[in-house]
Amino acid sequence: MTPDETVTALIRACEARDLDAVCALVTDDIEYDNVPIGNVTGPDGVRSVLSGGVTQAAEQVEWVVLHQVATGDVVMNERVDRFLVDGRWIEIPIAAVFTVRDGRVSLWRDYFDLETYRRQRP
Amino acid sequence: MTPDETVTALIRACEARDLDAVCALVTDDIEYDNVPIGNVTGPDGVRSVLSGGVTQAAEQVEWVVLHQVATGDVVMNERVDRFLVDGRWIEIPIAAVFTVRDGRVSLWRDYFDLETYRRQRP
Repeated sequence: MTPDETVTALIRACEARDLDAVCALVTDDIEYDNVPIGNVTGPDGVRSVLSGGVTQAAEQVEWVVLHQVATGDVVMNERVDRFLVDGRWIEIPIAAVFTVRDGRVSLWRDYFDLETYRRQRP
Repeated sequence: MTPDETVTALIRACEARDLDAVCALVTDDIEYDNVPIGNVTGPDGVRSVLSGGVTQAAEQVEWVVLHQVATGDVVMNERVDRFLVDGRWIEIPIAAVFTVRDGRVSLWRDYFDLETYRRQRP
């Protein structure tokens, strides 16, 4: 897989709420940073963050990619991350940067406005 | 100039606080969107937004580009936008998407956390 394809596979695994597939696509030393909240490291950190938002709270997850561009090992995308919670869609506009090493994501930083998420929370 | 070079020229013009140079690098129908705040259109809209933050409030401006990637006419970058205000540096972590048409920027969207900016404001 190219770095671009690796990131697309990661996004699809998140939409499928398949955390084993997500963890298989990240390096052991991944830094996963939700910029306004803070960062975690390693597959266990990624699993712990995503198990809250992606697999437990949401009945359904859609991450709509508006743009995705890549140069070398660096991939960036613009997304609308959508979560169906209590029958209502929460939408978070996001721009993200990823670096890919040996077919796995070693850095993942999501930039978004925290208040935009908070005011939609049930 | 390539789309990548056009975006770099735009960033440099902002750092130089040269709004005429900025406006010469955008299309007549540019959409400039500070996502958590809202969007403006056209060079006059860009000038109006930037004249507040970039040319009036700040004594000095540094936009540090951490990553910049491009595919076709789409460019994205990850930046730390720094503004020297009343002798203190305000820092805003940003990820942005740009589209370029005929050597000018036609879409510019900055993703950031508004509260991260607000709590640093003098």
